[in-house]
Amino acid sequence: MTENTQPTEQGDFNLLKHVRVVMVNTTLPGNIGSAARAMKTMGLSDLVIVDPKKPIDDEAVARSSGATDILDAAVVTETLDDAIKDCGLVIGTSARSRSIPWPLLNPRQCAERAVANLQGSDSVTSNCQKVAILFGREDRGLTNDELAKCQAHVHIPTNPDYSSLNIASAIQVVCYELRMAIETQIKPESEFWGVEWDRELASAQELEGFINHLEQVMIDSEFLDPENPRYVMTRMRRLFNRSLPDKVEVNVLRGILSSITKKFNA
Amino acid sequence: MTENTQPTEQGDFNLLKHVRVVMVNTTLPGNIGSAARAMKTMGLSDLVIVDPKKPIDDEAVARSSGATDILDAAVVTETLDDAIKDCGLVIGTSARSRSIPWPLLNPRQCAERAVANLQGSDSVTSNCQKVAILFGREDRGLTNDELAKCQAHVHIPTNPDYSSLNIASAIQVVCYELRMAIETQIKPESEFWGVEWDRELASAQELEGFINHLEQVMIDSEFLDPENPRYVMTRMRRLFNRSLPDKVEVNVLRGILSSITKKFNA
Repeated sequence: MTENTQPTEQGDFNLLKHVRVVMVNTTLPGNIGSAARAMKTMGLSDLVIVDPKKPIDDEAVARSSGATDILDAAVVTETLDDAIKDCGLVIGTSARSRSIPWPLLNPRQCAERAVANLQGSDSVTSNCQKVAILFGREDRGLTNDELAKCQAHVHIPTNPDYSSLNIASAIQVVCYELRMAIETQIKPESEFWGVEWDRELASAQELEGFINHLEQVMIDSEFLDPENPRYVMTRMRRLFNRSLPDKVEVNVLRGILSSITKKFNA
Repeated sequence: MTENTQPTEQGDFNLLKHVRVVMVNTTLPGNIGSAARAMKTMGLSDLVIVDPKKPIDDEAVARSSGATDILDAAVVTETLDDAIKDCGLVIGTSARSRSIPWPLLNPRQCAERAVANLQGSDSVTSNCQKVAILFGREDRGLTNDELAKCQAHVHIPTNPDYSSLNIASAIQVVCYELRMAIETQIKPESEFWGVEWDRELASAQELEGFINHLEQVMIDSEFLDPENPRYVMTRMRRLFNRSLPDKVEVNVLRGILSSITKKFNA
């Protein structure tokens, strides 16, 4: 599959190729593989690994679940400076509050900032400024020195009693928000049900015809006493109006009622 | 640690205890463990496992990384109906578009709907209506029959060329959005920098004093020609204004300038 099958949409999502995930001093190669998978599901591809404890291995490949192209293209550097030298905006993930406060974003704000940065720059050319998002060690994150190289920090909100977020899960959440930042730009107002409906909605007249038919069946079946209807029909109207039935659904409902009436009269 | 250390905030997040994660017919116990960890980081605790291929094992416990309380409390049921029988709102994750369209939410809308549902109901009592979110098999998700039991479907936006989202990662994203839905209610307007700053911002007068001092040093060092200043000082003003320096930072900057001036005059 080529990336040009959906030119307009994919064009916007191509911005994500300018966001670099930087994993610093990662202990487990499996986590690098899971990170590659997480990145690729969201359309990111630029992975840089700074001084990993162990090189990419079979476990990393297994965990990448087919995102081996991301692993193959991953650049390994000795220092963080090398990993971010061509990036215009550098954001570091931070789990704890720091002694010197730093501008702090949540993942949604981080994504909005990254996308705004790329859209402001000449981002579709090959030599645009990149955005780097740094992820630290499994056990203790980024050091203060590493965080001080960042223009902002991003913190994923967690349960204060248990904030042990897996590093690939953290990358998944940050990459998801990056994709959502572009999704919500492209589709600011989704269809009412979030999906294109396959049938036209029933008209008011069709609904009214159905409700009257239903009422008649309810009376014929002696469920409803027309002398003492209380709010039963109002409840039925509310139920069916709320679900906005389409024409086919109303036809099916009327077909059911007709069969019942026929049976009553048989 | 008890949950009552931060009464107000935790009170709101306690709503998340009424959201049930239902894993249907999961193949790998490791994924159940990762799911438990993902849930716990976001403050969820109600896990129901429907007809798993294998029971919870050592790999599940290892992957849960200390979220064993979630695994210990997990309920295993034979059928999906048993898993959701006490739930008022049931939402199923869906990767594909279906032949019969169903109301479709993205994870953010799913979280807003779930939280609104719980806040509308008597959700802090023990017998409130629960919300269930269903996650299907690793390889082929939920069946059409299972999805037809849901009031709405939720779809995580992914790269159309590679949508192979790990099930625990999908649970992480959905649970993250649930936490964010409450976070953004509690903290709709975060501080400007997303964090409480430790120092008061410099006043306009202090900034002006610094800029004038800087200009003098630039002239004294013969960097700036006062006869032909062009926009250099405007650029410096823009740079420092943009970063909103605090009083301590301005004091440090002025200290540097004073030392330079002193050295010039030595």
